[in-house]
Amino acid sequence: MSANLQLNDEGKLKHFLTIDGFSREMLNEILDTATSFAGMSEHQVKKVPLLRGKTIVNLFFENSTRTRTTFELAATRLSADVLNINIATSATSKGESLLDTIRNLEAMHVDMFVVRHGISGAAQFIAENCAPHISVINAGDGQHAHPTQAMLDMFTIRQHKQDFSRLKVAIIGDILHSRVARSQIQALNTLGAEEVRVIAPKTLLPAHIEKLGVTPFHDMKAGLADIDVIIMLRLQKERMNSSLLPSESEYFKCFGLTEDKVRLAKPDAIVMHPGPINRGVEIESSVADGAQSVILEQVSNGIAVRMAVMSMAMQSTGGGA
Amino acid sequence: MSANLQLNDEGKLKHFLTIDGFSREMLNEILDTATSFAGMSEHQVKKVPLLRGKTIVNLFFENSTRTRTTFELAATRLSADVLNINIATSATSKGESLLDTIRNLEAMHVDMFVVRHGISGAAQFIAENCAPHISVINAGDGQHAHPTQAMLDMFTIRQHKQDFSRLKVAIIGDILHSRVARSQIQALNTLGAEEVRVIAPKTLLPAHIEKLGVTPFHDMKAGLADIDVIIMLRLQKERMNSSLLPSESEYFKCFGLTEDKVRLAKPDAIVMHPGPINRGVEIESSVADGAQSVILEQVSNGIAVRMAVMSMAMQSTGGGA
Amino acid sequence: MSANLQLNDEGKLKHFLTIDGFSREMLNEILDTATSFAGMSEHQVKKVPLLRGKTIVNLFFENSTRTRTTFELAATRLSADVLNINIATSATSKGESLLDTIRNLEAMHVDMFVVRHGISGAAQFIAENCAPHISVINAGDGQHAHPTQAMLDMFTIRQHKQDFSRLKVAIIGDILHSRVARSQIQALNTLGAEEVRVIAPKTLLPAHIEKLGVTPFHDMKAGLADIDVIIMLRLQKERMNSSLLPSESEYFKCFGLTEDKVRLAKPDAIVMHPGPINRGVEIESSVADGAQSVILEQVSNGIAVRMAVMSMAMQSTGGGA
Repeated sequence: MSANLQLNDEGKLKHFLTIDGFSREMLNEILDTATSFAGMSEHQVKKVPLLRGKTIVNLFFENSTRTRTTFELAATRLSADVLNINIATSATSKGESLLDTIRNLEAMHVDMFVVRHGISGAAQFIAENCAPHISVINAGDGQHAHPTQAMLDMFTIRQHKQDFSRLKVAIIGDILHSRVARSQIQALNTLGAEEVRVIAPKTLLPAHIEKLGVTPFHDMKAGLADIDVIIMLRLQKERMNSSLLPSESEYFKCFGLTEDKVRLAKPDAIVMHPGPINRGVEIESSVADGAQSVILEQVSNGIAVRMAVMSMAMQSTGGGA
Repeated sequence: MSANLQLNDEGKLKHFLTIDGFSREMLNEILDTATSFAGMSEHQVKKVPLLRGKTIVNLFFENSTRTRTTFELAATRLSADVLNINIATSATSKGESLLDTIRNLEAMHVDMFVVRHGISGAAQFIAENCAPHISVINAGDGQHAHPTQAMLDMFTIRQHKQDFSRLKVAIIGDILHSRVARSQIQALNTLGAEEVRVIAPKTLLPAHIEKLGVTPFHDMKAGLADIDVIIMLRLQKERMNSSLLPSESEYFKCFGLTEDKVRLAKPDAIVMHPGPINRGVEIESSVADGAQSVILEQVSNGIAVRMAVMSMAMQSTGGGA
Repeated sequence: MSANLQLNDEGKLKHFLTIDGFSREMLNEILDTATSFAGMSEHQVKKVPLLRGKTIVNLFFENSTRTRTTFELAATRLSADVLNINIATSATSKGESLLDTIRNLEAMHVDMFVVRHGISGAAQFIAENCAPHISVINAGDGQHAHPTQAMLDMFTIRQHKQDFSRLKVAIIGDILHSRVARSQIQALNTLGAEEVRVIAPKTLLPAHIEKLGVTPFHDMKAGLADIDVIIMLRLQKERMNSSLLPSESEYFKCFGLTEDKVRLAKPDAIVMHPGPINRGVEIESSVADGAQSVILEQVSNGIAVRMAVMSMAMQSTGGGA
């Protein structure tokens, strides 16, 4: 997909659907905007009136309390009104089509859709089909993209490592099914990381993964050598019992992140995970809670990055105060 | 029911339970008030502080994301605080009576109940039994009434046709089970429509329907002749397989709204539907999306009409700023 | 547990987990603060900006619409932003530990947890393990404590009886399983009630109940003699069919509160119940609705008391405006 759909006529951010197609400048603008929001959490009153009177709809076709919560908090701190709609349990159960649901919400003069959907491309479909004054933010669609997750990861990396151009980053785990990994790889390459590696068993790596601009490894020892940033992926329960994996303990032995494995990377490497973590499945507790872990910083940064994306997108559609 | 319960001592709107018993003046006052809110959707900040500090409870004994959403948006844009209570899944499951639930919420000093209930008369029962400072809005009770839906329909008709006195309106579908149809018929007659027709198979028309001030038809060709406003009703799934209906395709053939059927009405007739629509069941997609359809305008107008009813009711109980 | 965890270094209220360990002065300070909020319900605008920009998380591991509602209203009237998280249906279903859930919400810079949990001690566990800037309010944990319920009861008693030192109070029903009773007994004793009695069948009284500072009775006639305040407990459905009880009707005959039984107490005794009431199970309808009942006042006072506890706790952590 070209970035055009995501930008307005003046090249400003309008939708945020995928990292793919954005320029390094745009990603940096998002990170810079997020920096200004990151400091706000320490204030007595953690709100700005930027989006007062705007209506943001959390349109969740998949349950995700965690993601919904971060978007709801970000919107509230921008003073927007939030409408939570859980489609899994409602609307389309009356047989209404997705497009009719969208048309109806548009007619209620809402300003933004934050979309979570089990099908790849759903957020883009909505962006292509919704009214021009509405912004769409992808909060995870199938195995396709989770761009705000990737940007909060970039924000966290930048806080610790500043310059991307000298960084070697390893993403470890179920690359095959991970929308997070796809968005991270695109963001890291756009921001000019020196090297992006993926480490996974062959069954959890897509074919031709090199085309995404990564170097595949099937072995932690080789893959972690000289690495600055270790990004673990969550192992979905449904994979654990599938034929794609050996037993859970076998997986942990090969690809779980232990203190010993962390020592294979650079001494000042940071450890990241999008959460929620499976302690003892893909990551050892002492690593998750250890000095090199920045997992909780990622969560904090998620609010600031989402505030940045929401306020930038709303300003480009003529919204914002 | 007399209108007395719905008016305060000064004849102002206090509850909004049914169209039945309201004067033409009151309905026009609601429509005029809604007009002032309808323009607000275009503003940068879509909020007015009219009901700031008021607590509005969405008391839903039946699930209806769509209706709940419109009331929540209307309340939020009046700056009220909204409390969503889904009784289907909570409260009375502990065996508490409806009256005790109401008494408890009253004691929490809430200001308004928006009630959705599967039993006809539930909203009136609550209005009769709640504290004098509380307003009750009926958001649909059994097969009895859905007065805000009827008023948003009247608002939409007035936008397009101005004068009711020269209008011929046809309501088509499952009249027998439709609270929407009952409220529409009362509103159209109160506002002085020239003729109100209902078109349905005999099994979906109540006996003695003429007493409501309508002319029954069992045939679209005759029924649609010379019509200014076509109002389709939603065909509930549970009817489709009942003995009241032939097959779904047979029903569509006889009573579904197609482009050909629309041509039976006046050339400038408008097509309405309360939503959510069943494409291909009671209405053809090309008609729902066609030039004569005002279905999405109905949705937009729903917010303005609900803001009007809520603010008028609250002002009469001494609320409002 | 000592009160230390619940107080900050200056002896101010920080968490509100249990009545146990609080001084009479602290309980009176809460009641006095609640008095100032109790009057607000009559105002046109029922809000104060005390907690503007603060985020309060209703963290409910057990469903309780009623309790969640009172905390949500209290927080909203303090102008805080409220995030409802129903863990029963979400989060930990992905296998995340309680501690990881807490850590994540902390990282989102929330300010207060209102915790409802089926396990005794859960709120304390969270208070012991959360970040120093966060306050924890116990909204009911297992059979351990429900301190805001006890304080709203004390507030209601004080409104009607002023001086605790000359009061005889009887708590009637399932003492064994009641977190409400435990908190009430501690509050009454701390506030210096002259006598606290518990009346229950032997199967519903804990062993050595006297150690809590109460006099046990197994007979309403003896137990209610000379009583100023009658507190009924709710009989949980799951007890009714257990071996702990005779039949429901037998229970009502012995321990249900009827008009005749009320006459055994002082003529100006008040009748209390934490709700929701089971009419005809533990209390006769005419008593629940009678002149001596203050049950609905308890509900009203619940909002004021929760506003008091929330604002006091937030001020001690450096929050509040």
